[in-house]
Amino acid sequence: MGLIYKEELKLGFDMCDVKLDVKLPHLISYCLGLSGRQTELLQMSDQKVLDDNHLIWIITDHELTLDRLPRFGDTITIETEPFAYNKLFCYRRFTIFDQDHQQMAEIITHFALMDPDTRKVAQIPTDLVQPFESDFVKKLRRTPKIKTLENPKEKIYNVRYYDLDMNGHVNNGKYLDWIYDVMSYDFLSKHRPVAIQLRYIKEVSPDGTIVSRYEQDQLTTTHDITADGNLHAQAIIQWKEIED
Amino acid sequence: MGLIYKEELKLGFDMCDVKLDVKLPHLISYCLGLSGRQTELLQMSDQKVLDDNHLIWIITDHELTLDRLPRFGDTITIETEPFAYNKLFCYRRFTIFDQDHQQMAEIITHFALMDPDTRKVAQIPTDLVQPFESDFVKKLRRTPKIKTLENPKEKIYNVRYYDLDMNGHVNNGKYLDWIYDVMSYDFLSKHRPVAIQLRYIKEVSPDGTIVSRYEQDQLTTTHDITADGNLHAQAIIQWKEIED
Repeated sequence: MGLIYKEELKLGFDMCDVKLDVKLPHLISYCLGLSGRQTELLQMSDQKVLDDNHLIWIITDHELTLDRLPRFGDTITIETEPFAYNKLFCYRRFTIFDQDHQQMAEIITHFALMDPDTRKVAQIPTDLVQPFESDFVKKLRRTPKIKTLENPKEKIYNVRYYDLDMNGHVNNGKYLDWIYDVMSYDFLSKHRPVAIQLRYIKEVSPDGTIVSRYEQDQLTTTHDITADGNLHAQAIIQWKEIED
Repeated sequence: MGLIYKEELKLGFDMCDVKLDVKLPHLISYCLGLSGRQTELLQMSDQKVLDDNHLIWIITDHELTLDRLPRFGDTITIETEPFAYNKLFCYRRFTIFDQDHQQMAEIITHFALMDPDTRKVAQIPTDLVQPFESDFVKKLRRTPKIKTLENPKEKIYNVRYYDLDMNGHVNNGKYLDWIYDVMSYDFLSKHRPVAIQLRYIKEVSPDGTIVSRYEQDQLTTTHDITADGNLHAQAIIQWKEIED
């Protein structure tokens, strides 16, 4: 259990793709913005954590379960709950409801703390999570192992100025942009994601070039993002065909 | 004069760049989303215009005057007023105020109507603009002629899946992404735009490759976006140095 914070959002033109579905990078960015607003309300803003503890929050995983994708014109409620933490991770749930309070989607995000100078992960000080009333759990949350790609298709991308966020790192949402774009327009226009497992391994540097690679096995695609041969992110996406 | 609609917005992490300034593509997208919400309130949504008149709104120009760029954490008010129209264009102003109602920035956007099948511009039917109480003006709004580039620097970009909006066209905000990215990170990190004139000439096709080119003359940069030798957009940006 943790303190719940929620906001209502009407999905405008700017948030939706060519299928009228919400753009997932935008949805994830919005969710992170919303979680930022909860941390501010609880006097636990990123700035304060940096000033007081010399630490920054980083995201290591997103687990998306997409029963129904929010679409253009929908008014959705996004509820967030920092539901648990252990020595190394905080877990936050974003639940998306339609206007009848039926659940449409869920995103579980794993956060860790990092020293911005040494780039090393730090243990989570209890006083940083106490205001959120999250439960302490001993166990780490398990996520499926994502296989190494053997014969992937790939495309090369340059990091762009506006891909960077306030920390000078590539915005987390951007990875999904690369992960999507490497697939064919034809496939993307005929399929919707139902589940996405996304793991961030290593930051992408601001002036870098990355390779987005993927393999497809029926309705499952497995992805990675590499740069100079190093693994920066991995993902698995389960798809369903769009019925006309 | 036209009916005014406004919303308050707190600029979160997801809206800001590495300088903590608002990301202009995001700000423009947000403004267009906001104008969409006004049109819906007045029962004049894009969908209705398409259903009743078989026409879609397109944007031909943005004129941005940026006295002070909104920044991370700012609570701004965006006020929009569809202030005038003539036979071919509707003009909408977005004014951005800080919390003390001091003006920070202004965006004037030129809209035209297009038949989605023939791609031809249509005259503006009076009943489409009447609900906005905009003034009829005979004159077209003049914008400065943007010079042809003679010895530009350039970068090539592929259109990505998430660059497309609901119409299957490249989202208007995306052009500024290409226009910015072609410049050096060093220049961008030390300068802020104070005025931007952006003209859209021709749509970019979903599967296309574009070239973003620019020339610099002191604190003025002149830009274009071309594809297969055709001109798709042009821009002029006036910059100022950031004082430490």
